[in-house]
Amino acid sequence: MQIGMIGLGKMGFQLSLNLVDKNYDVVAFDVNKDSMKKISSLDVKTADSLEELVNQLEKPRTVWMMVPAGDATEAVFDKLVDLLEEGDRIIDGGNAHYKDSIRRNEKSEIKGIYFFDCGTSGGVEGARNGACTMVGGNEEIFRQIEPIFQDITVENGYLYSGKAGSGHFLKMVHNGIEYGMMQAIAEGFDLLDKSPFDFDYEKVARVWNNGSVVRSWLMELTENAFSKDKNLEGIKGVMHSSGEGKWTVETALDLQAAAPVITLALMMRYRSLEDDTFTGKVVAALRNEFGGHAVEKK
Amino acid sequence: MQIGMIGLGKMGFQLSLNLVDKNYDVVAFDVNKDSMKKISSLDVKTADSLEELVNQLEKPRTVWMMVPAGDATEAVFDKLVDLLEEGDRIIDGGNAHYKDSIRRNEKSEIKGIYFFDCGTSGGVEGARNGACTMVGGNEEIFRQIEPIFQDITVENGYLYSGKAGSGHFLKMVHNGIEYGMMQAIAEGFDLLDKSPFDFDYEKVARVWNNGSVVRSWLMELTENAFSKDKNLEGIKGVMHSSGEGKWTVETALDLQAAAPVITLALMMRYRSLEDDTFTGKVVAALRNEFGGHAVEKK
Repeated sequence: MQIGMIGLGKMGFQLSLNLVDKNYDVVAFDVNKDSMKKISSLDVKTADSLEELVNQLEKPRTVWMMVPAGDATEAVFDKLVDLLEEGDRIIDGGNAHYKDSIRRNEKSEIKGIYFFDCGTSGGVEGARNGACTMVGGNEEIFRQIEPIFQDITVENGYLYSGKAGSGHFLKMVHNGIEYGMMQAIAEGFDLLDKSPFDFDYEKVARVWNNGSVVRSWLMELTENAFSKDKNLEGIKGVMHSSGEGKWTVETALDLQAAAPVITLALMMRYRSLEDDTFTGKVVAALRNEFGGHAVEKK
Repeated sequence: MQIGMIGLGKMGFQLSLNLVDKNYDVVAFDVNKDSMKKISSLDVKTADSLEELVNQLEKPRTVWMMVPAGDATEAVFDKLVDLLEEGDRIIDGGNAHYKDSIRRNEKSEIKGIYFFDCGTSGGVEGARNGACTMVGGNEEIFRQIEPIFQDITVENGYLYSGKAGSGHFLKMVHNGIEYGMMQAIAEGFDLLDKSPFDFDYEKVARVWNNGSVVRSWLMELTENAFSKDKNLEGIKGVMHSSGEGKWTVETALDLQAAAPVITLALMMRYRSLEDDTFTGKVVAALRNEFGGHAVEKK
């Protein structure tokens, strides 16, 4: 089966190799010429433009988009809708907002193109050797392309999740859960670090990964991290975020759902971006105003 | 090797069977005669009193306490310190507060008895077939009883964690992490439940358990729970707690460690215990006072 792969970033590159391993006939495209050259050298076909990619595929075409959410996805999607024909399929494997995916599905439908929003989890390693995907869109057509998901995921690692938008919604909430779990794990190790004991964090994470209630892939990654840097001395405690946690919190607000732990996990990431805080200055100033409590001068 | 097992509740009962499987010579005692009769019928030796249990063991004796934290642990511990002799060992496999374990270790030391605080994770199933343990106490003597931990845990499932108190400290923090992880998972499913989509929660948990970043034992338990009751209609959303989450938060306060997500997970449990809240009444009354906003009458 032929698949057009658009986007050869960390995920798309590995996913292409994964697909080729499973005997898919992949035609890849990326604006980055280096990535194109690199994947070419691994015997993956490439196309010099979106037009050429579409021309190289037989109808009905299946095109997998793996580009950054937002403007890049919008631009590629719009061009694809122009180029593709009735019956063709677009799979967006990126991290688009589920509302954008609902909108894109509606736009695709007008031309008779089938749109699938595919939440992809498992990181780069998963993309290469077995990911986890949750896919929304037309169920009948999904069943025709189902073998793709079966082939690129681990066993039981894909789900047809319902109408368009549901795949990206699931992926978003998955990431929200991830924020909360990570912050809980991190707070636990912070307590160990401030405790009167002398723990070996790698060993702690290892024992917790074997038979305990908190055993998890994230705890395995914690173990890996401590194995490389015993006390994480080489890393600053700055926690960036790439948008899906924020969307989860925004969605919780939209749905009037109380999601305090996920929300606070996100807020703690924002807090970590600042060395000093204006909040801190205001509270310190107020304590000084009403109680004469000393402030720390800058 | 002989082991005296005190306490045949859910954990102690299964742990005794686990030890017998591994060819330990277990002598069990519980104040509950039914548990004694039941374990007797499974070919485990029993003793009619703590005194008799101590008498049945050869020196140096190894006694495993598996009784509820607090008064029960204190009473059994005090009696054991009286009955045991220099060189004997007490393992407290229960969920005692780490500060109590430090105190008990000091008391034991006076008589030359070795005290080990052993945090035990993995639930009832783990106690039976392979638990996860973290053990604090005298390292030299620990190495003599290390085979016990090796035998009753899963592979790499035990850790000598340092001086007395460190085992129960680790278990406490483990449970704090568990609170945060569970609340994050639960908030995620709550979002799915309030979403415009029609998700099958069992299938969602299953796909998340296969290849995703949030795969974990807790997510597997989530999958199990939804497999038994599709929408958990048979369960009220009342979240009890058994103390270790509270201790984790109290410890965070003692250590001036910021652990907001673990703390909030505990607070959400408390919130769940109330059908209506006084907080709610106060806020509703204030909105009415300043803005004339309608209140819901009782």
